[in-house]
Amino acid sequence: MKNYKLTIQYVGEKFQGWQKQTSTDNTIQGKLESVLSLMAEEDVKVDGAGRTDAGVHAYGQVATVKLTNAKNPRDIKFYCNKYLPQEIAVVNVDEIYPRFHARLNKSVKVYQYRINNSGVRNVFENRFQCNLDEKLDTSKMKHAAETLMGTHDFTSFSSNKNSKKSNERTIYSIDIEKIDGEIILTFKGNGFLYNMVRIMVGTLIEIGLGQRSMKDIGRIFAAKKRSEAGFLAEAKGLSLVEVIYEE
Amino acid sequence: MKNYKLTIQYVGEKFQGWQKQTSTDNTIQGKLESVLSLMAEEDVKVDGAGRTDAGVHAYGQVATVKLTNAKNPRDIKFYCNKYLPQEIAVVNVDEIYPRFHARLNKSVKVYQYRINNSGVRNVFENRFQCNLDEKLDTSKMKHAAETLMGTHDFTSFSSNKNSKKSNERTIYSIDIEKIDGEIILTFKGNGFLYNMVRIMVGTLIEIGLGQRSMKDIGRIFAAKKRSEAGFLAEAKGLSLVEVIYEE
Repeated sequence: MKNYKLTIQYVGEKFQGWQKQTSTDNTIQGKLESVLSLMAEEDVKVDGAGRTDAGVHAYGQVATVKLTNAKNPRDIKFYCNKYLPQEIAVVNVDEIYPRFHARLNKSVKVYQYRINNSGVRNVFENRFQCNLDEKLDTSKMKHAAETLMGTHDFTSFSSNKNSKKSNERTIYSIDIEKIDGEIILTFKGNGFLYNMVRIMVGTLIEIGLGQRSMKDIGRIFAAKKRSEAGFLAEAKGLSLVEVIYEE
Repeated sequence: MKNYKLTIQYVGEKFQGWQKQTSTDNTIQGKLESVLSLMAEEDVKVDGAGRTDAGVHAYGQVATVKLTNAKNPRDIKFYCNKYLPQEIAVVNVDEIYPRFHARLNKSVKVYQYRINNSGVRNVFENRFQCNLDEKLDTSKMKHAAETLMGTHDFTSFSSNKNSKKSNERTIYSIDIEKIDGEIILTFKGNGFLYNMVRIMVGTLIEIGLGQRSMKDIGRIFAAKKRSEAGFLAEAKGLSLVEVIYEE
């Protein structure tokens, strides 16, 4: 039995998200498990670091897979890229120590959200951006982002209704850059709840448009109610950029 | 009657190329003419600088259109982007002197061809690259590219069988860069025949793979036969980057 760490890229557009579902196999996890099970001639389970939503992309998703029938990492990579749909690529495969698990090991996750605020759609990047014609005030957004950072109960920023687990997470940084009419928000944190990045982005957009005060964030945290936070920003603007492990 | 110069971007994937055809209106020119005719309430004709093939993209296609019912350039741009398919965008509209014609005025056209030679597909750029796993020798390609430059009869590098017009064209430069496993070929010339860039790329690829000698180019020019040149490289790797006019 050997354990492998895979780094995976995908364009999320056509898929029902990362996580395998009983009703459909049109998920990234499902596609990977099918291809790897065929290759290894055994039923394999692929564990991903981040369960990206339907329509969300990844530049650096990380997953682990254990194989009884050990294979050369190069052969695993070659086989995956040959048989996976063209919107998914395995860019790296390494053998790793047995206890390493992509989701359970502590990590810093980096998500990026791209907003085209130029007023003209970018036909080349349209699949990876949400479009917003009204101008955003990024200084207000940066100010509000500072109050989102740190360790908080993010219940108000999650679509998950009845979680019994802790909703406490730590956000290490939120960077907001404006480059040629595009606004890029980069979130680094130890974990993100269901829809959490997209709801934070929706809330920051409402602040950037002046529809909501910069001071709202404290009240939203305290309420612990999804309805207090902003709208759910479109999936296609979001990408899981990187997963950084401690060792 | 006023004359307008439009700068247009598109992802060619879904379209049957630039030029309007009687059998289909699924062309960039056809889409633009439909939208502009509706807006101006008259039949308009849009003339493009380069007649890009089916599947070829554009970052900076230029076109001219004459309108009897004059409009504000900003309104033309807004209307086009509102009603065009999302893979086409009008990024600039200027009023221009009446005799200016996107195709007939002298220009330098810049085309770019992108080859992913990294061995792993790039899921984000896959629509804009051809994939080639065997390593290319770019120094051989650069050497051969020098002999393609200058003024020549490019009959052997064209798919157009029975042209009675001159096939003489001038290529000012061919740059070949390698950036992180991607090879980018940039062609600047006063005009390109039907399929000419893609046949030059196919020929340079054969040279880069060692299937053909660097010295072949002279013989290909002299033969004036399409069959002497290399294969037709895939459309999706090609983009019309820029059209530069003399004044």
